[in-house]
Amino acid sequence: MHRTKVKVAEDALDANTTIAQANREDFDRHGVRVVNFMSAPGAGKTTLLERVLADIDVRVGVLEGDVQGSADADRLAALHIPVVQINTDAGFGGECHLDANMVRSALPDLPLAEIDLLVIENVGNLVCPAEFRVGEDARIMVSSVTEGEDKPAKYPLMFRACELVLINKIDLLEHLDFDLELFHYKLDAVHPDVETMELSAKTGEGTDAFRDWLVRVAGAAPAPA
Amino acid sequence: MHRTKVKVAEDALDANTTIAQANREDFDRHGVRVVNFMSAPGAGKTTLLERVLADIDVRVGVLEGDVQGSADADRLAALHIPVVQINTDAGFGGECHLDANMVRSALPDLPLAEIDLLVIENVGNLVCPAEFRVGEDARIMVSSVTEGEDKPAKYPLMFRACELVLINKIDLLEHLDFDLELFHYKLDAVHPDVETMELSAKTGEGTDAFRDWLVRVAGAAPAPA
Repeated sequence: MHRTKVKVAEDALDANTTIAQANREDFDRHGVRVVNFMSAPGAGKTTLLERVLADIDVRVGVLEGDVQGSADADRLAALHIPVVQINTDAGFGGECHLDANMVRSALPDLPLAEIDLLVIENVGNLVCPAEFRVGEDARIMVSSVTEGEDKPAKYPLMFRACELVLINKIDLLEHLDFDLELFHYKLDAVHPDVETMELSAKTGEGTDAFRDWLVRVAGAAPAPA
Repeated sequence: MHRTKVKVAEDALDANTTIAQANREDFDRHGVRVVNFMSAPGAGKTTLLERVLADIDVRVGVLEGDVQGSADADRLAALHIPVVQINTDAGFGGECHLDANMVRSALPDLPLAEIDLLVIENVGNLVCPAEFRVGEDARIMVSSVTEGEDKPAKYPLMFRACELVLINKIDLLEHLDFDLELFHYKLDAVHPDVETMELSAKTGEGTDAFRDWLVRVAGAAPAPA
């Protein structure tokens, strides 16, 4: 007589985590390191990528997430790097974030064997993108000084769910009431000791340090199997 | 013999629409007009409300939506108007928007009989808030010039789903590359002839016209039953 096998499901992963792990295995097999780039709408993600990817010393590809359109993908494709656009509107119901399955749907179009670093530019949103791992090595969030100092307190999950916080548009500081010290204080309250960089995608100030950071992440890639 | 009654459900509303209509009936019964105020994080909704509600000539209340915290509600309560905070984190699973049911949950705490205008400040997000009616008369969206001209093309549903677009932070125009004409062109492509106002919540420029707009909305309220 056979005993019924009971699968104990208490450690079962949700679908997103399962797919994120599958993505991660594909990235590892090709020796690709992956960063997930998040921010509010208009914080300057694309402008920053235009600046640092134009002359970065690693082979890079971009996966561009937007509800609709391909304007950002077109801007980055002008750098002559492989760029794939995911529209969450078509087929994914207008979702406000990328999830692991959307990223997976784009993998066949990405030349993983020919890149060392994949930058995933998420949908502009400070809530849901932080809830969905996609198989990335690191999460970067961009907070613009025009958004005010209170954002870490209002969107704590997002500021907690990243390894690097970029404080962008510092060229505008002299025209704003933004208190940089207060921002760091509020950030420290939700994510103590997270690495931060202050920069301006527009003038280029501080962007070399971010480019170096990306090169270090890419350099940590294991040799392809 | 009785014939079975068949309820034809083809016109059935989804739960959100049903609850939004119930909210609307409550608002109408009390003669309250309601605006739903939406924007990306950091576009300046609260600062703008501080400025225009401080000396508005109607009885106003505020329903404040945030994932977490009550910083904005506290700022507006300082104006000595009734303010109720909804946190989407507690009880609603950290949602990135307000829906009709969340608004309904707050109605018992709002003195509807004592106000003419209810301002609902939504969660900062350019995607999902546009998908959920809450029983409002009008939807207002705030787009800051620091966010770039491309936002109507990237978030068309949001820019389509409003009766008024406020273009905020015009005091910063001289320090930005923002092309106001290009923004209007892109807005016109997704929502032709929508009413717009250019203003600065910080300096007050243009805010009188927005206050007058709110007064007109409040004045359109029917007499309470």
